[in-house]
Amino acid sequence: MDTPKLFLGVVLGIVVFLLAASVYMEISPQPDRDTAYQVSTIDALLQGALDGVQTAGEFRQHGDFGIGGFAALDGEMILLNGTVYQIKADGHVYRPVDSLTLCLATATYFEQDLVLTPGTYMNYTTFISAMPKRLPTQNMVYAVRIHGTFPSMTARATPAQEKNSTLTRAAQEQSVFNLTDTTGTVVGFYVPPFFSGLNVPGFHLHYLSDDLRSGGHILDFTVPAEVSVEYDITPEFTMVLPTSGPFTGVDLTKDLRKELEEAE
Amino acid sequence: MDTPKLFLGVVLGIVVFLLAASVYMEISPQPDRDTAYQVSTIDALLQGALDGVQTAGEFRQHGDFGIGGFAALDGEMILLNGTVYQIKADGHVYRPVDSLTLCLATATYFEQDLVLTPGTYMNYTTFISAMPKRLPTQNMVYAVRIHGTFPSMTARATPAQEKNSTLTRAAQEQSVFNLTDTTGTVVGFYVPPFFSGLNVPGFHLHYLSDDLRSGGHILDFTVPAEVSVEYDITPEFTMVLPTSGPFTGVDLTKDLRKELEEAE
Repeated sequence: MDTPKLFLGVVLGIVVFLLAASVYMEISPQPDRDTAYQVSTIDALLQGALDGVQTAGEFRQHGDFGIGGFAALDGEMILLNGTVYQIKADGHVYRPVDSLTLCLATATYFEQDLVLTPGTYMNYTTFISAMPKRLPTQNMVYAVRIHGTFPSMTARATPAQEKNSTLTRAAQEQSVFNLTDTTGTVVGFYVPPFFSGLNVPGFHLHYLSDDLRSGGHILDFTVPAEVSVEYDITPEFTMVLPTSGPFTGVDLTKDLRKELEEAE
Repeated sequence: MDTPKLFLGVVLGIVVFLLAASVYMEISPQPDRDTAYQVSTIDALLQGALDGVQTAGEFRQHGDFGIGGFAALDGEMILLNGTVYQIKADGHVYRPVDSLTLCLATATYFEQDLVLTPGTYMNYTTFISAMPKRLPTQNMVYAVRIHGTFPSMTARATPAQEKNSTLTRAAQEQSVFNLTDTTGTVVGFYVPPFFSGLNVPGFHLHYLSDDLRSGGHILDFTVPAEVSVEYDITPEFTMVLPTSGPFTGVDLTKDLRKELEEAE
């Protein structure tokens, strides 16, 4: 047997196969890119299930764009262009290590399907009531991205909570940041009313300034008339529920929409 | 060049790679087997979105076990051991072609994680109130399978609906089948209360007799004390929402739990 040549052939065979497989992977559809991926639920946070349920590193495998909160509600989370940021109650923006855990988070691969402009100068209240009516359907999950300069932006971050706290209590202790003429990205989701209990119905938006010096969970803002509000239609929704820890024990039978309104 | 030997080597290389890849696939986790997969929502049916949104053939790619309904609510659907069955209002069980469409459906790959026995002879009302309390957590989706002989089984099937009908109206026109000492399989899901709007909170069970001669959506039954109630814990939930058709236009902002109670 001509062993070296056979060996060369085996290696070549593997190379040919890998090349073919990589071409196939490129051309085959990647359905999960239109998936909104979520860990835990908003109601679990309202009921005090604030333990970390997924690491930031694992979470990043499910999208390049998203929002959420860290274990014990220690700051607000933004996932932007594949990087996880933590905006803490001290007002600073951190890049957490992959092993830091999240208590709630939603992600997708952001691909612009639709752009709408407000048309008129809008404050937050106007924005969240007017914009849903202009969507192709309100019965759909959309990722929402706005890059621009905002005349005003009010964002908050919650401080790390002790055991037995809830999102509502964390909101009472929140730090509020009042930014003016800030340039950055609004990152978030619109989810339909029938997601109540799982996620925040309507818009849920976080903010990160371009200079990475400020941001948080958006409480109020003003948007210029001509800013591009980009939407990514995500018809698939995947949610992973914790199988251990506080999540399994909290009471999720109640309608917590009132508590959510206070906390958001 | 010894071309035949090189060629043999290339073929051998591909074979070696494929063998290694198949071993890898076997030992690596398959997360989607613990996923409850769903198309459309229960509230959409209550609001009259009865169009088919996925073919039976496509649906079967997401599990070997499940329940649902066909387009226009033409009968009840059971997916058992990978086969889709249609129990129509005429009382007969059909095996639909893959191109027949579903208006709502939930599936998983059934793998028994947990077995509970009722302990005492139970009717449906007792079963659905007593069994959830014995689950490791009620904040989780479980697939539920019971194979046994049921002293009594009351099942229904809805007849195909005209345009502008709803699940509630279909339920008013349902055929009811009263079976006694029937041997077969109960197929269904337990979903937590916070899935209200998306799916049927609590138990939602269909039935198919072993002789494939009867079944339907379960309205009532009696279960023997010693029957095995098998549960498959499905911590991942994936839902696909229709991006066109009536789903996008129906009003899904209301709490329809009362309408659901009438329809189920």
